[in-house]
Amino acid sequence: MTKKGTILSGMRPTGRLHLGHHSVLNNWVQLQDLYHCFFMVADWHALTTGWEEAKEIRPNTREMVADWLAAGLDPEKSVIFSQSEVQEHAELHLLFSMIMPLSWLERVPTYKDQIKKLGEMGKDINTYGFLGYPLLQAADILVYKANAVPVGEDQLPHVELTRETARRFNHLFKPVFPEPQGIINRELAVLPGLDGAKMSKSYHNYISMGADPDEIKKSVNQMITDPNRIRKTDRGNPEVCVVHKFHRIYNGQLLEGIEADCRSGSMGCVACKKQLSAVLDQELGPIRERREKVLSQKGYIEEVLKDGAERARTAAGATLQEVRKAIFG
Amino acid sequence: MTKKGTILSGMRPTGRLHLGHHSVLNNWVQLQDLYHCFFMVADWHALTTGWEEAKEIRPNTREMVADWLAAGLDPEKSVIFSQSEVQEHAELHLLFSMIMPLSWLERVPTYKDQIKKLGEMGKDINTYGFLGYPLLQAADILVYKANAVPVGEDQLPHVELTRETARRFNHLFKPVFPEPQGIINRELAVLPGLDGAKMSKSYHNYISMGADPDEIKKSVNQMITDPNRIRKTDRGNPEVCVVHKFHRIYNGQLLEGIEADCRSGSMGCVACKKQLSAVLDQELGPIRERREKVLSQKGYIEEVLKDGAERARTAAGATLQEVRKAIFG
Repeated sequence: MTKKGTILSGMRPTGRLHLGHHSVLNNWVQLQDLYHCFFMVADWHALTTGWEEAKEIRPNTREMVADWLAAGLDPEKSVIFSQSEVQEHAELHLLFSMIMPLSWLERVPTYKDQIKKLGEMGKDINTYGFLGYPLLQAADILVYKANAVPVGEDQLPHVELTRETARRFNHLFKPVFPEPQGIINRELAVLPGLDGAKMSKSYHNYISMGADPDEIKKSVNQMITDPNRIRKTDRGNPEVCVVHKFHRIYNGQLLEGIEADCRSGSMGCVACKKQLSAVLDQELGPIRERREKVLSQKGYIEEVLKDGAERARTAAGATLQEVRKAIFG
Repeated sequence: MTKKGTILSGMRPTGRLHLGHHSVLNNWVQLQDLYHCFFMVADWHALTTGWEEAKEIRPNTREMVADWLAAGLDPEKSVIFSQSEVQEHAELHLLFSMIMPLSWLERVPTYKDQIKKLGEMGKDINTYGFLGYPLLQAADILVYKANAVPVGEDQLPHVELTRETARRFNHLFKPVFPEPQGIINRELAVLPGLDGAKMSKSYHNYISMGADPDEIKKSVNQMITDPNRIRKTDRGNPEVCVVHKFHRIYNGQLLEGIEADCRSGSMGCVACKKQLSAVLDQELGPIRERREKVLSQKGYIEEVLKDGAERARTAAGATLQEVRKAIFG
């Protein structure tokens, strides 16, 4: 099948993933058949806000890639690799830095916000590397001549900077780069955490992708439901119920019935949660199994990353040759 | 002979060198026997202030390295290479960027000065890469664990930043880097240009290292002498004479006599210049010959740079392995 183009996407290696990542991964799995995909462990990026926890990056990479593979990323179809294994990212970042107006980086909307936010958490990230982080992202994307980048809406300014970088390079030297488009998957449901806030590791309100049936049950039991529903026969309001939001994503076929039973008061929260636990276990069971299989094959993850790094280097190296020629002649 | 340590020094590839560079090169030639020397064509640095002239970098590199070899740099003794051939510089620069407070770079004394100065010349260099240029220098030096850097006094703040970078890395992760010392060679006479200002290509007041006897004569004839000396029998003042400054450097043995003859009026400027031309020709003749020899061996310079890049990569690669281990464990 002819593919639509090339995609680069990545995640910082924060360790085992949770259901918030699961929907992103489901999207990646689908993209694999449509695009040439490069999926990157953004380990250099992890240093921009947390060199204090640098020692966790390698073990976290292993855990994360296990989840990637368990969720269905396929090293036969896609290039799965660690950013730090491909020096071409650093070289292109350096070359781009020479034509990148400081003001463009200072004006990235997330820049001052994040410095302030992390500053309040006691983290000083006012470094040269943090300022240059969207430029490193531009290099990550353009080094594979990706023409599409699946992103969340909050990351659109970064894609825009990537496009501007490509345009500026092409204008100053030679047209080498495409101007990548951000693909926003609006069907990508934003999953709430158990408490209704955004699911996040740091809020401890997540369900791990590798959760076993007991963990799933425990987590679902913690989910916040309609606070006005006291007795199980009270009429419920699914709009304000976290359990319902999960049903919406993982239990689409039965959703209508569940909603009706909740509103009429004919099904109580305990039964509703039980149903969700079963559905989640059905969803996560195969992932759990694949995860175990992946981890049981000694050296498999390392092999995937090594092979991915080689393929990434080949692609990135070809781009860099063009880039050097465009600059130096 | 046991060497005192490792040196990194470099020049931007501005093309054929002049006598202002000659004294620096003479110093490098001597250092070759005392230190493990890495002599770098700073081609990435050349982009920080002049990507508009990027197409000249490759031919300029060739001309400059021809002069290096002609002046006596010896590829058997030293590693002669182009920065852009060693990706480890870019990787270390990126890794350093993660721990480099923005304020440290903003406070480098030359930073705002240069932006202003070049701004007045109509050059906008307010880029991310220009801000990070002293950090790239730190990476250049530390990637070879150089413990000494021959510099001019104006560059001492850059060496200081390099030392601070090394200290910060060693403190945050693991002691990997030495704290390099700037070696200032105070005997390194600052050579004036023909007009008495600093010798510089952009002032068109230089004598090229490869100048032939005619060019030398023509240049020496242009040198500014004591303006109060009208007739050749007038008493001269060597302190204000450019010719005399050249005699001081290139004609040390006969200096006393020349000075006396000038002050007494017994030797006129024409004769004095004739003597200088002869001395300069004696000095530059062998360089010219070696230069021609170097250029006549087809592919020789390319071979030197290729071999140098390989040796540089080996040394830099070993450091990077330590660095990665120190950061990621």
